[in-house]
Amino acid sequence: MIESLFGTRIKELRNAKGLSQEKFALSIDMDRTYYASVESGKRNISINNISKIAKGLGVSLEELFKGL
Amino acid sequence: MIESLFGTRIKELRNAKGLSQEKFALSIDMDRTYYASVESGKRNISINNISKIAKGLGVSLEELFKGL
Repeated sequence: MIESLFGTRIKELRNAKGLSQEKFALSIDMDRTYYASVESGKRNISINNISKIAKGLGVSLEELFKGL
Repeated sequence: MIESLFGTRIKELRNAKGLSQEKFALSIDMDRTYYASVESGKRNISINNISKIAKGLGVSLEELFKGL
């Protein structure tokens, strides 16, 4: 399911940056528990929030969806 | 704004396939007026619907977001 694939992908990219969920969520002004549920594949996240996460991770949307 | 960029992108890809909004929306089992509003950049579309559109257009999510 795309939500799970997306969650796994952002988790990998966040870990590669060495940031905790809490620090990363704070850096993009997103609720920490909401962000955690996105990583867990539990949210049908919207394009605005996807874009916010991409910016925080420093990747393009194209790069974010690579291989998904 | 990402909604507008996304709308323009899917419109281009749909036109390249030579399909009307109505035929394309029908092919992916999406409400025609909802689909039209996505193309117009008026919807904060969710990842599930983004995935549905990508499948209908026959492109990967990576390809769908190319250059956005």
